Amino acid sequence: MKVVIIGSGNVATHFALALQAKGLTICQIYSRTSSNAESLAKKLDTPFTSEISDIYRNADVYIYALKDSSFLKLLKKFNLPNTALHIHTSGSIPMNDFFGYADKYGVLYPLQTFSKNKEVDFSQIPICVEAINQEVEEALLNIAHLLTPKTFVMSSEKRKKVHLAAVFACNFSNYMYDIAYDIVMSAGVDFEILKPLIAETANKIQTMTPREAQTGPAVRYDENTINKHLTLLNRKKNLKEIYRILSKSIHKRHGKSKKPGFIINTLNRLRKKIALQFSSNYKL
Amino acid sequence: MKVVIIGSGNVATHFALALQAKGLTICQIYSRTSSNAESLAKKLDTPFTSEISDIYRNADVYIYALKDSSFLKLLKKFNLPNTALHIHTSGSIPMNDFFGYADKYGVLYPLQTFSKNKEVDFSQIPICVEAINQEVEEALLNIAHLLTPKTFVMSSEKRKKVHLAAVFACNFSNYMYDIAYDIVMSAGVDFEILKPLIAETANKIQTMTPREAQTGPAVRYDENTINKHLTLLNRKKNLKEIYRILSKSIHKRHGKSKKPGFIINTLNRLRKKIALQFSSNYKL
Repeated sequence: MKVVIIGSGNVATHFALALQAKGLTICQIYSRTSSNAESLAKKLDTPFTSEISDIYRNADVYIYALKDSSFLKLLKKFNLPNTALHIHTSGSIPMNDFFGYADKYGVLYPLQTFSKNKEVDFSQIPICVEAINQEVEEALLNIAHLLTPKTFVMSSEKRKKVHLAAVFACNFSNYMYDIAYDIVMSAGVDFEILKPLIAETANKIQTMTPREAQTGPAVRYDENTINKHLTLLNRKKNLKEIYRILSKSIHKRHGKSKKPGFIINTLNRLRKKIALQFSSNYKL
Repeated sequence: MKVVIIGSGNVATHFALALQAKGLTICQIYSRTSSNAESLAKKLDTPFTSEISDIYRNADVYIYALKDSSFLKLLKKFNLPNTALHIHTSGSIPMNDFFGYADKYGVLYPLQTFSKNKEVDFSQIPICVEAINQEVEEALLNIAHLLTPKTFVMSSEKRKKVHLAAVFACNFSNYMYDIAYDIVMSAGVDFEILKPLIAETANKIQTMTPREAQTGPAVRYDENTINKHLTLLNRKKNLKEIYRILSKSIHKRHGKSKKPGFIINTLNRLRKKIALQFSSNYKL
């Protein structure tokens, strides 16, 4: 099976390397930026091009790993070979964007964060699969199963939501690490000190729901601590705003479940006071 | 060494269990809420009380694992035994809040997220240590080293910043998981699908900086995808606001480093166009 990879970013790189390792022939890399195409082609020891007109037309599979806007532009310019299989890897591009450009098409969306120089174990990666028909679905599942046992056939609509969830679970949580990194480093403390905490935070949700796992000043609405933190962030308006909105939101999420306990405690204390009052009166 | 634990929350629970496992005698649990005190006392097979006046006065060490506001209230009510060691476990309470209430005092702040029913490996947990004098510091380090080799002597000022960083790295990133959980579940997809992604996101920063590890539509400012996501979140104003502010902030953080590449690509394309223009003119 001869595969052309369209794109040279993180997803293209890891997909190409993983498929080649499983015995598929990556026969060409296309990227608009010649140096990027060359760099990935070198890793795979395969030809490359930065000209759409030079993309091989005799491959069996074309894998499009591009950012959304580039994908649509390319479809308009590239006259897709009809007999081949056309697959994009995007979480948020609907499968039917291929409609009118190709006959046999589908999606393999690997739900993972890829960085070029960080190896990943593809066998742990879920792949969301969607295909235009049964025959293409089988072909796509065959390719996906070369890489991982974790395949999920789902519609574009569902995949888009999974992608949105992934932005929160991965991109935004990594940004929280990034902010934390800056805070400890600016205090002259090495980021190492936070690593066990980050590992355990991610580890907890393997066996608990994130809601059960939530801890910290916001969940118990410890205003004293929250205000101290806002004071510390004083000159960083942006971070202060993020801290405030996330704390509020966590509090709202957990507020209701906390209230009954709080009310019960207050009632118990009132009851004690009344009882005490009553017993003193009685003694008098 | 006889230890009284003041508090019965997550930190109190894990501290008490870990110290008892290392051979220290937990001789009493105090908590304002009797049922909480009882529940922890049962786990340790030790007495408990919910009356400040009943706290044992003959222990060697008092460990205060309370939320900040409760800590101050308790200090005012509890006449602290002078000869004993008094230790709080809070990230944000200054050590000197003990001043005037005790003679020998300090802080052991374990940098970890604790949930009552989730076991933790204390030997992986960094503990921030602060003491009123050299003698107390030695005593505190001895206790800390029973639990972990990772001890960091640091001031209240630094500890407060580490605690702030921990809120981002742990509490806020867990909240990102929580939002993601709701999004996939509401799409009828099991949260399982996100677990490898969350594990890898946390794993990446063990060897890369969070800044290097950042991926997603915000870092490459893929407006198309960002707008699709905002539309998907349409009726959830709160989440939309969080998505927007974090995406903007990530973009700002990575914008500068991206510009040179963007400028170089644009210049290259312009150069090609000019060369083409020139060659056509020349031919004419």
